[in-house]
Amino acid sequence: MKIDILTLFPEIYPGALGSSIVGRAVRNGLVDIRAVDLRDYAHDRRGTVDDRPYGGGPGMLMNAEILSEAIDDLRGPDTLVILTSPRGKRFEQREAEKLSREKSLLFVCGHYEGVDQRVIDSRIDVEYSIGDFVLTSGNLAAMVMTDAVVRLLPGALGDDESSGEESFSTGLLEYPQYTRPPVFEGVPVPEVLLSGDHQKIARWRQAEAERITRERRPDCWERFLKEKNGG
Amino acid sequence: MKIDILTLFPEIYPGALGSSIVGRAVRNGLVDIRAVDLRDYAHDRRGTVDDRPYGGGPGMLMNAEILSEAIDDLRGPDTLVILTSPRGKRFEQREAEKLSREKSLLFVCGHYEGVDQRVIDSRIDVEYSIGDFVLTSGNLAAMVMTDAVVRLLPGALGDDESSGEESFSTGLLEYPQYTRPPVFEGVPVPEVLLSGDHQKIARWRQAEAERITRERRPDCWERFLKEKNGG
Repeated sequence: MKIDILTLFPEIYPGALGSSIVGRAVRNGLVDIRAVDLRDYAHDRRGTVDDRPYGGGPGMLMNAEILSEAIDDLRGPDTLVILTSPRGKRFEQREAEKLSREKSLLFVCGHYEGVDQRVIDSRIDVEYSIGDFVLTSGNLAAMVMTDAVVRLLPGALGDDESSGEESFSTGLLEYPQYTRPPVFEGVPVPEVLLSGDHQKIARWRQAEAERITRERRPDCWERFLKEKNGG
Repeated sequence: MKIDILTLFPEIYPGALGSSIVGRAVRNGLVDIRAVDLRDYAHDRRGTVDDRPYGGGPGMLMNAEILSEAIDDLRGPDTLVILTSPRGKRFEQREAEKLSREKSLLFVCGHYEGVDQRVIDSRIDVEYSIGDFVLTSGNLAAMVMTDAVVRLLPGALGDDESSGEESFSTGLLEYPQYTRPPVFEGVPVPEVLLSGDHQKIARWRQAEAERITRERRPDCWERFLKEKNGG
């Protein structure tokens, strides 16, 4: 897979993407991640890439012509062009799975007050939002999506890094986990986990995952029940 | 404000937090952000901080004793201790606003398969999830929350970096924006934006924000209507 990230802050990459699982996936050639400076496409020597919004208001926009030239230069015939945007479709695990089957992604990081609507209409395949909060730029959103996608690439996770039983992949939140010591500040590990009875442990974990999901995320619980009943 | 981030990958900080608005807030003394290596609290020379889960299963957990000692060392009387976790409460703009009024935050970045439940019960004030997707670690979640919180600190945004009219702060998604050229690939900027009539422009933007919210996020639209009607 090839991932290009068009940004005003290429120097912050690889950053959080350089360590751990994503860094290893890059080193192993599973994915090629490149941060591209939008300023490389500026029309003047000062690297100006922003412009004022028509109709007034605070803040600046990314220049429509420069941005579209950059996108056109970077995208290939198989590239999915993604804009990070609070107005976008909510990015969830299913979207990560979908993106992990693409050959080439181009993330356009929103900056300033946003992107000229005509560039969105003509160049952006999908707008994604990672959540209902405001960030200083789209860079962290692009990193989050890249991280969620790359760990799903075949071979990205090691043998001891499970991907099957995690929250959102089974439709349930995770059951509680315990490690040593057996008694911590007076609180013992639940007895069933020390029993060695694997079936009993699996039943307990399933019941706990269901309880936690029911309590904390009624929305996920409803969806889980629906899918379980073949709806 | 003071923000400590307890992590296995301190080297990726400040990273995406070092540039732009958050970096400036740090340089201006509005916030002190520190990444602390959990391995500094290891009990052996090799820096072991993980352990196997009771009851079996793939993956490792963060050691309960080491993690709780680190938290106890880092938290002060006013510190809110936050765990990044897919099982947590959904982090949204209102939570960012709430956190921006705290004096001291300690983010515990989830790693491996998670954290011993007894440490969560005894040490964690709140568990937050940034969304329904799986990340390779809690670091990007901690960065996202830090970014969303720091930009809300008084003085963090410059005069030309608006915070009032953004998505989620008004309850509506943002209206479309346009910048030069007036005609881009045959598509003109909406005439109203060139009219110079500020009232008309404001009305058009409000109507567009409402239309986009209605179309893309019926959930936000419902909430907006309810709050507008004093519910």
